[in-house]
Amino acid sequence: MTLDASLADWRTTIDAALDAVLQPHDDAPAHLVEAMRYAVFSGGKRMRPVLALAACEAVGGSSAHAEPFACALELIHTYSLVHDDLPAMDDDDLRRGRPTVHVAFGEAVAVLTGDALLTAAFRVAAEGGVRSGLAPDRVLAIVTAIAVAAGERGMVGGQALDLDAAGKPADLTLVEAIHRRKTGALLGVAVETGALAGGASGRTLEALRAFGRALGLAFQVADDILDAAPTAVTGKRAGRDAEHQKATYPAVLGVDGARRVACDLKTQCHAALEPLGPAGDQLRALASFVVERATA
Amino acid sequence: MTLDASLADWRTTIDAALDAVLQPHDDAPAHLVEAMRYAVFSGGKRMRPVLALAACEAVGGSSAHAEPFACALELIHTYSLVHDDLPAMDDDDLRRGRPTVHVAFGEAVAVLTGDALLTAAFRVAAEGGVRSGLAPDRVLAIVTAIAVAAGERGMVGGQALDLDAAGKPADLTLVEAIHRRKTGALLGVAVETGALAGGASGRTLEALRAFGRALGLAFQVADDILDAAPTAVTGKRAGRDAEHQKATYPAVLGVDGARRVACDLKTQCHAALEPLGPAGDQLRALASFVVERATA
Repeated sequence: MTLDASLADWRTTIDAALDAVLQPHDDAPAHLVEAMRYAVFSGGKRMRPVLALAACEAVGGSSAHAEPFACALELIHTYSLVHDDLPAMDDDDLRRGRPTVHVAFGEAVAVLTGDALLTAAFRVAAEGGVRSGLAPDRVLAIVTAIAVAAGERGMVGGQALDLDAAGKPADLTLVEAIHRRKTGALLGVAVETGALAGGASGRTLEALRAFGRALGLAFQVADDILDAAPTAVTGKRAGRDAEHQKATYPAVLGVDGARRVACDLKTQCHAALEPLGPAGDQLRALASFVVERATA
Repeated sequence: MTLDASLADWRTTIDAALDAVLQPHDDAPAHLVEAMRYAVFSGGKRMRPVLALAACEAVGGSSAHAEPFACALELIHTYSLVHDDLPAMDDDDLRRGRPTVHVAFGEAVAVLTGDALLTAAFRVAAEGGVRSGLAPDRVLAIVTAIAVAAGERGMVGGQALDLDAAGKPADLTLVEAIHRRKTGALLGVAVETGALAGGASGRTLEALRAFGRALGLAFQVADDILDAAPTAVTGKRAGRDAEHQKATYPAVLGVDGARRVACDLKTQCHAALEPLGPAGDQLRALASFVVERATA
């Protein structure tokens, strides 16, 4: 199957699963669920769920085992965007071409929407993980890995470093420290989650962890490069990183230097996948896809 | 053992466990961990962890099995206070007699501190639950119950209803709908969590669930009554509910009416505990303690 066809399949699976998770419920205020759905169904690329499903399939697992965690990762990613867009944070009013949640629903509801999405992520991971038939101890290993990657040692920690660095002189060490956490950690754990749900262990699991680490950073470098693109391409306001004096790869290395880093990381991704042989082909194609959208 | 002595013991246990969970870590930005600790170690009553440990002991379980979940519940409670105090929410500058997190660390760090505390709660529950030796399927049942109670069907949903109701005419149905979710859900699941960690099932588990539901509501009614008290007693600014035109029990029933509701709920708590016999004595005393601080 081509990568495009696989991507379409994975996204259909994920969107159906997210739709099931975010149904109206008698106990949940309707406007809160509406805001959660508004945030989640806004044309995202579903990169984290795609990586989880692809990694699960690459190790010969059933993607049904990875699906609850794929949902959880997308809910966590979405909550982070909702909170990141808040006036007290990046103060963005546009995301994927639409008003951000706090513009559409008010700031208080946006705070709560993020909180509810983050909480729902762990509900889905725990409840759905059990229901998928995966062994409970493996479900718990995955929930723990996701929580570590999403928390103060991972994504939230990266956002705190990022805010702290804004407007200060940045060097490559700092930029990498921020991005490994802010984006890299969750993308990396998406790969690990899929591998664990698919039954991977030993050398295969290690190979996929290394792949996830390189891919997570590659994705962010590519994103930084694309930030210079006009709104019509990315659906968010262009040049926001520069406006906020964010620590980015293009800021410390220039755009060409950032492109070289992205290409190096793609090579690392491919090298990490060698132990998987042809089973790694879709992941290999994903790594190329991620990097080439910013370097082609 | 007297209730006072038990409370002191439980709080010492919880504070030590929280301290271990919130240690500096190479991967976590120091100022974020500092803000997390500032929020958590601010003289809270640890009511949710206390309920979890007390319920676990009441069913003959080892409190070591309930400890990770007790921590998780306190982290969730704390994050909800940090976010609730934000300018976009209740805009409180004082909590337990100290500047709130956004006053002390800035608004962006306060958003992230709440996010990190919520995420850490699920890390502790999953990782600590396994480490405690509790069966993995029981750990997952507890994690799921906590996520449901903390999310859009529970605590976060209650906060959304609460914000939505501010300034509008409130009736008893609405006030109860808000408080059952906003405070009741997490207090209720604290009792359930302790019971599950302690190995309860069948009639005992049902009895403790009923106790938790009644106690959760009783706690909030008492809190509403105490809101009229001066700052010196509660450590927060007095009369904030009325200032925000919040839907509260005293607002719809008057203070005397609210006191009668609190006393009725205490009776319900005690009735629910009957199947436990003398093993329920500490929980019985806890219910009296919660209600009597507002009605004595």
